[in-house]
Amino acid sequence: MDEQYIAPLENLIQKIRLLPAVGRKTAIKYAMRILELPPDNADAFLFAIQNAREKIHRCSKCFNMTEGELCSICSDPRRDASTICVVEDIRSLMAVERAKGYRGVYHILDGTISPIDGRGPENIHLLPLVERVEKEKTKEVIIATGMGVDGETTSMYISRMLANLPVKITRLAYGLPAGGELEFADEITLLKSIEGRQEIIIS
Amino acid sequence: MDEQYIAPLENLIQKIRLLPAVGRKTAIKYAMRILELPPDNADAFLFAIQNAREKIHRCSKCFNMTEGELCSICSDPRRDASTICVVEDIRSLMAVERAKGYRGVYHILDGTISPIDGRGPENIHLLPLVERVEKEKTKEVIIATGMGVDGETTSMYISRMLANLPVKITRLAYGLPAGGELEFADEITLLKSIEGRQEIIIS
Repeated sequence: MDEQYIAPLENLIQKIRLLPAVGRKTAIKYAMRILELPPDNADAFLFAIQNAREKIHRCSKCFNMTEGELCSICSDPRRDASTICVVEDIRSLMAVERAKGYRGVYHILDGTISPIDGRGPENIHLLPLVERVEKEKTKEVIIATGMGVDGETTSMYISRMLANLPVKITRLAYGLPAGGELEFADEITLLKSIEGRQEIIIS
Repeated sequence: MDEQYIAPLENLIQKIRLLPAVGRKTAIKYAMRILELPPDNADAFLFAIQNAREKIHRCSKCFNMTEGELCSICSDPRRDASTICVVEDIRSLMAVERAKGYRGVYHILDGTISPIDGRGPENIHLLPLVERVEKEKTKEVIIATGMGVDGETTSMYISRMLANLPVKITRLAYGLPAGGELEFADEITLLKSIEGRQEIIIS
Protein backbone atom coordinates (compact mmCIF):
# COMPACT_ATOMS: atom_id res chain seq x y z
CA MET A 1 0.00 0.00 0.00
CA ASP A 2 1.33 3.38 -0.97
CA GLU A 3 1.01 6.14 1.56
CA GLN A 4 -0.79 9.25 0.44
CA TYR A 5 0.81 12.65 0.52
CA ILE A 6 -1.21 15.84 0.88
CA ALA A 7 -3.45 16.48 -2.11
CA PRO A 8 -1.41 19.01 -4.14
CA LEU A 9 1.70 16.86 -3.76
CA GLU A 10 -0.16 13.67 -4.57
CA ASN A 11 -1.55 15.33 -7.69
CA LEU A 12 1.92 16.47 -8.75
CA ILE A 13 3.28 12.95 -8.23
CA GLN A 14 0.53 11.51 -10.43
CA LYS A 15 1.21 14.02 -13.19
CA ILE A 16 4.96 13.41 -13.12
CA ARG A 17 4.20 9.76 -13.75
CA LEU A 18 3.09 10.77 -17.24
CA LEU A 19 6.82 10.87 -18.03
CA PRO A 20 8.18 7.67 -19.61
CA ALA A 21 9.36 4.92 -17.25
CA VAL A 22 8.85 7.03 -14.13
CA GLY A 23 7.51 4.99 -11.22
CA ARG A 24 6.06 6.32 -7.99
CA LYS A 25 9.35 6.48 -6.10
CA THR A 26 11.07 8.45 -8.83
CA ALA A 27 8.02 10.70 -9.20
CA ILE A 28 8.17 11.46 -5.46
CA LYS A 29 11.85 12.39 -5.76
CA TYR A 30 11.13 14.66 -8.74
CA ALA A 31 8.15 16.25 -6.97
CA MET A 32 10.24 17.03 -3.89
CA ARG A 33 12.90 18.64 -6.06
CA ILE A 34 10.30 20.69 -7.92
CA LEU A 35 8.96 21.94 -4.58
CA GLU A 36 12.48 22.85 -3.45
CA LEU A 37 13.44 24.75 -6.61
CA PRO A 38 14.14 28.45 -6.06
CA PRO A 39 11.31 30.56 -7.57
CA ASP A 40 13.45 31.67 -10.51
CA ASN A 41 14.28 28.12 -11.49
CA ALA A 42 10.71 26.99 -11.04
CA ASP A 43 9.45 29.79 -13.28
CA ALA A 44 12.09 28.96 -15.88
CA PHE A 45 11.07 25.30 -15.70
CA LEU A 46 7.39 26.09 -16.28
CA PHE A 47 8.21 28.57 -19.03
CA ALA A 48 10.42 26.02 -20.79
CA ILE A 49 7.56 23.53 -20.93
CA GLN A 50 5.01 26.06 -22.17
CA ASN A 51 7.40 27.66 -24.63
CA ALA A 52 8.55 24.34 -26.11
CA ARG A 53 4.96 23.19 -26.53
CA GLU A 54 3.94 26.47 -28.16
CA LYS A 55 6.91 27.01 -30.44
CA ILE A 56 7.76 23.51 -31.58
CA HIS A 57 5.74 21.74 -34.22
CA ARG A 58 6.40 19.22 -36.94
CA CYS A 59 8.03 20.00 -40.26
CA SER A 60 5.32 19.86 -42.91
CA LYS A 61 7.59 17.74 -45.11
CA CYS A 62 9.47 15.30 -42.92
CA PHE A 63 7.86 15.51 -39.43
CA ASN A 64 11.11 16.64 -37.82
CA MET A 65 10.67 19.18 -35.04
CA THR A 66 10.85 22.79 -36.12
CA GLU A 67 9.90 26.28 -35.12
CA GLY A 68 9.19 27.27 -38.71
CA GLU A 69 7.17 25.67 -41.50
CA LEU A 70 10.10 23.55 -42.69
CA CYS A 71 12.83 22.09 -40.50
CA SER A 72 16.46 23.15 -40.74
CA ILE A 73 17.31 20.09 -42.83
CA CYS A 74 14.44 20.35 -45.34
CA SER A 75 15.14 24.06 -45.80
CA ASP A 76 18.89 23.60 -46.29
CA PRO A 77 19.65 23.93 -50.04
CA ARG A 78 22.91 21.97 -49.57
CA ARG A 79 20.98 18.82 -48.66
CA ASP A 80 20.09 16.39 -51.44
CA ALA A 81 16.28 16.40 -51.40
CA SER A 82 16.09 13.47 -53.81
CA THR A 83 17.32 10.99 -51.18
CA ILE A 84 15.07 10.35 -48.19
CA CYS A 85 16.24 8.47 -45.12
CA VAL A 86 13.22 7.01 -43.31
CA VAL A 87 13.64 6.84 -39.53
CA GLU A 88 11.42 5.88 -36.61
CA ASP A 89 11.90 9.00 -34.55
CA ILE A 90 13.85 12.18 -34.01
CA ARG A 91 16.47 10.44 -31.91
CA SER A 92 17.22 8.16 -34.87
CA LEU A 93 17.54 11.22 -37.08
CA MET A 94 19.98 12.75 -34.60
CA ALA A 95 21.99 9.51 -34.60
CA VAL A 96 22.35 9.56 -38.40
CA GLU A 97 23.27 13.26 -38.32
CA ARG A 98 25.83 12.56 -35.63
CA ALA A 99 27.48 9.96 -37.88
CA LYS A 100 27.95 12.81 -40.41
CA GLY A 101 28.39 11.87 -44.05
CA TYR A 102 24.69 11.66 -44.94
CA ARG A 103 23.64 14.60 -47.10
CA GLY A 104 20.07 13.63 -48.00
CA VAL A 105 16.87 14.51 -46.15
CA TYR A 106 14.66 12.55 -43.77
CA HIS A 107 11.18 11.26 -43.17
CA ILE A 108 10.15 10.58 -39.57
CA LEU A 109 7.58 7.83 -39.11
CA ASP A 110 6.88 8.51 -35.42
CA GLY A 111 6.97 4.83 -34.53
CA THR A 112 6.87 1.46 -36.17
CA ILE A 113 4.26 -1.00 -37.26
CA SER A 114 3.92 -3.48 -34.42
CA PRO A 115 1.12 -6.03 -34.64
CA ILE A 116 1.92 -7.22 -31.10
CA ASP A 117 1.43 -3.73 -29.70
CA GLY A 118 -1.57 -3.09 -31.92
CA ARG A 119 0.14 -0.42 -34.02
CA GLY A 120 -0.77 -0.64 -37.68
CA PRO A 121 0.42 1.27 -40.78
CA GLU A 122 -2.23 3.94 -40.09
CA ASN A 123 -0.52 4.82 -36.80
CA ILE A 124 2.67 6.08 -38.43
CA HIS A 125 3.37 8.69 -41.14
CA LEU A 126 3.40 6.27 -44.07
CA LEU A 127 0.95 7.83 -46.50
CA PRO A 128 2.71 11.21 -46.38
CA LEU A 129 5.91 9.37 -47.33
CA VAL A 130 4.30 7.73 -50.35
CA GLU A 131 2.76 11.03 -51.45
CA ARG A 132 6.07 12.77 -50.98
CA VAL A 133 8.02 10.21 -53.01
CA GLU A 134 5.45 10.44 -55.80
CA LYS A 135 5.28 14.21 -55.85
CA GLU A 136 8.96 14.97 -55.42
CA LYS A 137 10.13 12.22 -57.77
CA THR A 138 12.48 10.96 -55.07
CA LYS A 139 15.40 8.93 -56.42
CA GLU A 140 16.23 6.84 -53.35
CA VAL A 141 14.53 5.91 -50.09
CA ILE A 142 16.91 4.54 -47.46
CA ILE A 143 14.91 2.65 -44.87
CA ALA A 144 16.68 3.20 -41.54
CA THR A 145 14.19 1.74 -39.10
CA GLY A 146 15.61 -0.44 -36.31
CA MET A 147 17.00 -3.90 -37.05
CA GLY A 148 14.57 -5.66 -34.68
CA VAL A 149 11.25 -7.32 -35.48
CA ASP A 150 9.17 -4.12 -35.57
CA GLY A 151 11.75 -2.25 -37.60
CA GLU A 152 11.97 -5.09 -40.12
CA THR A 153 8.18 -5.40 -40.38
CA THR A 154 7.94 -1.68 -40.99
CA SER A 155 10.75 -1.83 -43.53
CA MET A 156 9.03 -4.61 -45.48
CA TYR A 157 5.74 -2.73 -45.44
CA ILE A 158 7.32 0.47 -46.72
CA SER A 159 9.15 -1.43 -49.47
CA ARG A 160 5.89 -2.89 -50.67
CA MET A 161 4.06 0.43 -50.61
CA LEU A 162 6.78 2.04 -52.71
CA ALA A 163 7.37 -0.93 -55.02
CA ASN A 164 5.37 0.49 -57.92
CA LEU A 165 7.04 3.88 -57.87
CA PRO A 166 10.21 4.63 -59.85
CA VAL A 167 12.35 4.92 -56.74
CA LYS A 168 15.33 2.92 -55.52
CA ILE A 169 14.63 1.42 -52.10
CA THR A 170 17.55 0.51 -49.85
CA ARG A 171 17.96 -0.72 -46.31
CA LEU A 172 20.72 -0.13 -43.74
CA ALA A 173 23.34 -2.88 -43.86
CA TYR A 174 23.43 -5.57 -41.20
CA GLY A 175 26.90 -6.41 -40.02
CA LEU A 176 29.51 -6.31 -37.33
CA PRO A 177 29.97 -3.02 -35.49
CA ALA A 178 33.18 -1.08 -36.00
CA GLY A 179 35.84 -2.56 -33.72
CA GLY A 180 33.63 -5.61 -33.12
CA GLU A 181 35.34 -8.95 -32.48
CA LEU A 182 33.85 -12.04 -34.09
CA GLU A 183 33.81 -13.97 -30.84
CA PHE A 184 31.39 -11.52 -29.28
CA ALA A 185 29.00 -11.26 -32.24
CA ASP A 186 25.63 -12.98 -31.98
CA GLU A 187 24.92 -15.65 -34.60
CA ILE A 188 22.33 -13.67 -36.57
CA THR A 189 24.55 -10.64 -36.90
CA LEU A 190 27.50 -12.76 -37.94
CA LEU A 191 25.48 -14.64 -40.53
CA LYS A 192 24.06 -11.40 -41.95
CA SER A 193 27.57 -10.02 -42.02
CA ILE A 194 28.74 -13.00 -44.07
CA GLU A 195 25.71 -12.79 -46.40
CA GLY A 196 26.37 -9.08 -46.92
CA ARG A 197 30.09 -9.56 -47.56
CA GLN A 198 31.70 -6.98 -49.81
CA GLU A 199 34.23 -7.62 -52.50
CA ILE A 200 37.62 -6.09 -51.91
CA ILE A 201 38.79 -4.46 -55.06
CA ILE A 202 42.48 -3.70 -55.27
CA SER A 203 43.03 -1.02 -57.82
CA MET B 1 29.93 16.10 -28.35
CA ASP B 2 26.22 16.39 -27.75
CA GLU B 3 24.11 17.42 -30.68
CA GLN B 4 21.97 20.49 -30.24
CA TYR B 5 18.24 20.42 -30.71
CA ILE B 6 16.27 23.49 -31.75
CA ALA B 7 16.36 26.21 -29.11
CA PRO B 8 13.00 25.72 -27.31
CA LEU B 9 13.65 21.98 -27.05
CA GLU B 10 17.24 22.47 -25.94
CA ASN B 11 16.03 24.89 -23.26
CA LEU B 12 13.42 22.39 -22.06
CA ILE B 13 16.06 19.64 -21.90
CA GLN B 14 18.32 21.89 -19.78
CA LYS B 15 15.49 22.70 -17.39
CA ILE B 16 14.47 19.07 -17.00
CA ARG B 17 18.02 18.36 -15.89
CA LEU B 18 17.23 20.30 -12.71
CA LEU B 19 15.48 17.10 -11.60
CA PRO B 20 17.62 14.81 -9.44
CA ALA B 21 19.82 12.26 -11.21
CA VAL B 22 18.46 13.13 -14.66
CA GLY B 23 21.15 13.05 -17.33
CA ARG B 24 20.88 14.40 -20.84
CA LYS B 25 19.53 11.21 -22.41
CA THR B 26 16.74 10.89 -19.86
CA ALA B 27 15.98 14.60 -20.14
CA ILE B 28 15.60 14.20 -23.91
CA LYS B 29 13.16 11.32 -23.40
CA TYR B 30 11.14 13.36 -20.90
CA ALA B 31 11.15 16.41 -23.17
CA MET B 32 9.87 14.37 -26.11
CA ARG B 33 7.06 12.98 -23.96
CA ILE B 34 6.15 16.46 -22.70
CA LEU B 35 5.92 17.64 -26.31
CA GLU B 36 3.73 14.68 -27.21
CA LEU B 37 1.27 15.06 -24.32
CA PRO B 38 -2.30 15.86 -25.37
CA PRO B 39 -3.14 19.50 -24.47
CA ASP B 40 -5.35 18.46 -21.53
CA ASN B 41 -2.58 16.42 -19.95
CA ALA B 42 -0.01 19.12 -20.57
CA ASP B 43 -2.21 21.73 -18.91
CA ALA B 44 -2.83 19.41 -15.95
CA PHE B 45 0.90 18.81 -15.69
CA LEU B 46 1.70 22.53 -15.61
CA PHE B 47 -1.15 23.23 -13.19
CA ALA B 48 0.03 20.46 -10.85
CA ILE B 49 3.48 22.04 -10.61
CA GLN B 50 2.16 25.55 -10.03
CA ASN B 51 -0.53 24.44 -7.63
CA ALA B 52 1.82 22.29 -5.56
CA ARG B 53 4.35 25.11 -5.31
CA GLU B 54 1.69 27.61 -4.31
CA LYS B 55 -0.29 25.50 -1.86
CA ILE B 56 2.38 23.49 -0.12
CA HIS B 57 4.58 25.00 2.55
CA ARG B 58 6.30 23.78 5.69
CA CYS B 59 4.58 23.14 9.01
CA SER B 60 5.60 25.94 11.39
CA LYS B 61 6.35 23.38 14.09
CA CYS B 62 7.95 20.35 12.49
CA PHE B 63 8.78 21.34 8.86
CA ASN B 64 6.55 18.62 7.43
CA MET B 65 4.72 19.63 4.25
CA THR B 66 1.29 21.10 4.77
CA GLU B 67 -1.36 23.22 3.15
CA GLY B 68 -2.30 24.84 6.48
CA GLU B 69 -0.25 26.43 9.26
CA LEU B 70 0.27 23.11 11.05
CA CYS B 71 0.64 19.72 9.37
CA SER B 72 -1.89 16.93 9.80
CA ILE B 73 0.30 15.23 12.42
CA CYS B 74 1.04 18.29 14.58
CA SER B 75 -2.63 19.26 14.52
CA ASP B 76 -3.86 15.77 15.44
CA PRO B 77 -4.87 15.77 19.14
CA ARG B 78 -4.43 11.99 19.31
CA ARG B 79 -0.70 12.29 18.69
CA ASP B 80 1.58 12.53 21.72
CA ALA B 81 3.19 15.94 21.31
CA SER B 82 5.67 15.28 24.12
CA THR B 83 7.64 12.77 22.03
CA ILE B 84 9.48 14.08 18.98
CA CYS B 85 10.98 11.79 16.36
CA VAL B 86 13.77 13.64 14.51
CA VAL B 87 14.11 12.61 10.86
CA GLU B 88 16.21 13.77 7.93
CA ASP B 89 13.40 14.30 5.47
CA ILE B 90 9.77 13.76 4.63
CA ARG B 91 10.44 10.38 3.10
CA SER B 92 11.88 9.22 6.42
CA LEU B 93 8.76 10.53 8.16
CA MET B 94 6.60 8.57 5.73
CA ALA B 95 8.67 5.43 6.42
CA VAL B 96 8.08 5.71 10.17
CA GLU B 97 4.38 6.39 9.62
CA ARG B 98 4.20 3.38 7.32
CA ALA B 99 5.59 1.19 10.10
CA LYS B 100 2.59 2.31 12.18
CA GLY B 101 2.86 2.09 15.97
CA TYR B 102 4.54 5.47 16.51
CA ARG B 103 2.13 7.95 18.07
CA GLY B 104 4.43 10.89 18.78
CA VAL B 105 5.18 13.85 16.51
CA TYR B 106 8.13 14.68 14.24
CA HIS B 107 10.82 17.18 13.51
CA ILE B 108 12.23 17.29 10.00
CA LEU B 109 15.84 18.40 9.71
CA ASP B 110 15.90 18.75 5.92
CA GLY B 111 19.24 17.04 5.64
CA THR B 112 22.17 15.98 7.75
CA ILE B 113 25.39 17.50 8.96
CA SER B 114 28.04 16.34 6.51
CA PRO B 115 31.52 17.84 6.86
CA ILE B 116 32.61 16.10 3.64
CA ASP B 117 29.80 17.75 1.66
CA GLY B 118 30.28 21.06 3.46
CA ARG B 119 26.94 20.96 5.28
CA GLY B 120 27.16 22.23 8.84
CA PRO B 121 24.63 22.41 11.68
CA GLU B 122 23.41 25.78 10.34
CA ASN B 123 22.21 24.09 7.13
CA ILE B 124 19.57 21.99 8.84
CA HIS B 125 16.66 22.85 11.17
CA LEU B 126 18.53 22.28 14.43
CA LEU B 127 17.92 25.50 16.35
CA PRO B 128 14.14 25.28 15.86
CA LEU B 129 14.35 21.79 17.39
CA VAL B 130 16.20 23.02 20.46
CA GLU B 131 13.78 25.93 20.89
CA ARG B 132 10.84 23.58 20.49
CA VAL B 133 12.12 21.09 23.05
CA GLU B 134 12.73 23.91 25.54
CA LYS B 135 9.41 25.62 25.00
CA GLU B 136 7.18 22.54 24.79
CA LYS B 137 8.92 20.74 27.66
CA THR B 138 9.34 17.71 25.41
CA LYS B 139 9.79 14.45 27.32
CA GLU B 140 11.63 12.40 24.72
CA VAL B 141 13.50 13.03 21.48
CA ILE B 142 13.99 9.94 19.33
CA ILE B 143 16.80 10.56 16.89
CA ALA B 144 15.89 8.71 13.70
CA THR B 145 18.50 9.98 11.28
CA GLY B 146 20.14 7.37 9.04
CA MET B 147 22.59 4.82 10.41
CA GLY B 148 25.43 5.93 8.13
CA VAL B 149 28.26 8.35 8.85
CA ASP B 150 26.26 11.56 8.26
CA GLY B 151 23.27 10.30 10.20
CA GLU B 152 25.48 9.35 13.15
CA THR B 153 27.35 12.66 13.08
CA THR B 154 24.04 14.50 13.08
CA SER B 155 22.74 12.29 15.88
CA MET B 156 25.78 12.99 18.06
CA TYR B 157 25.49 16.71 17.39
CA ILE B 158 21.80 16.80 18.31
CA SER B 159 22.46 14.80 21.48
CA ARG B 160 25.06 17.32 22.58
CA MET B 161 22.84 20.31 21.83
CA LEU B 162 20.02 18.84 23.90
CA ALA B 163 22.24 17.46 26.68
CA ASN B 164 21.52 20.27 29.13
CA LEU B 165 17.75 20.13 28.73
CA PRO B 166 15.54 17.88 30.86
CA VAL B 167 14.67 15.60 27.95
CA LYS B 168 15.32 11.92 27.37
CA ILE B 169 17.32 11.44 24.16
CA THR B 170 17.11 8.08 22.38
CA ARG B 171 18.39 6.67 19.11
CA LEU B 172 16.95 4.05 16.78
CA ALA B 173 18.30 0.59 17.58
CA TYR B 174 20.96 -0.99 15.42
CA GLY B 175 20.36 -4.65 14.78
CA LEU B 176 19.44 -7.38 12.36
CA PRO B 177 16.47 -6.78 10.08
CA ALA B 178 13.31 -8.80 10.58
CA GLY B 179 13.78 -12.14 8.83
CA GLY B 180 17.52 -11.47 8.53
CA GLU B 181 19.86 -14.45 8.61
CA LEU B 182 23.11 -14.10 10.55
CA GLU B 183 25.20 -15.38 7.67
CA PHE B 184 24.18 -12.42 5.50
CA ALA B 185 24.64 -9.69 8.12
CA ASP B 186 27.64 -7.39 7.82
CA GLU B 187 30.06 -7.43 10.75
CA ILE B 188 29.17 -3.99 12.09
CA THR B 189 25.46 -4.70 12.15
CA LEU B 190 26.02 -8.07 13.81
CA LEU B 191 28.31 -6.59 16.45
CA LYS B 192 25.85 -3.78 17.19
CA SER B 193 23.11 -6.37 17.39
CA ILE B 194 25.08 -8.30 20.00
CA GLU B 195 25.92 -5.14 21.94
CA GLY B 196 22.27 -4.14 21.92
CA ARG B 197 21.06 -7.59 22.99
CA GLN B 198 17.82 -7.65 24.95
CA GLU B 199 17.07 -9.77 27.95
CA ILE B 200 14.32 -12.32 27.47
CA ILE B 201 12.02 -12.22 30.44
CA ILE B 202 9.75 -15.21 30.86
CA SER B 203 6.83 -14.24 32.97
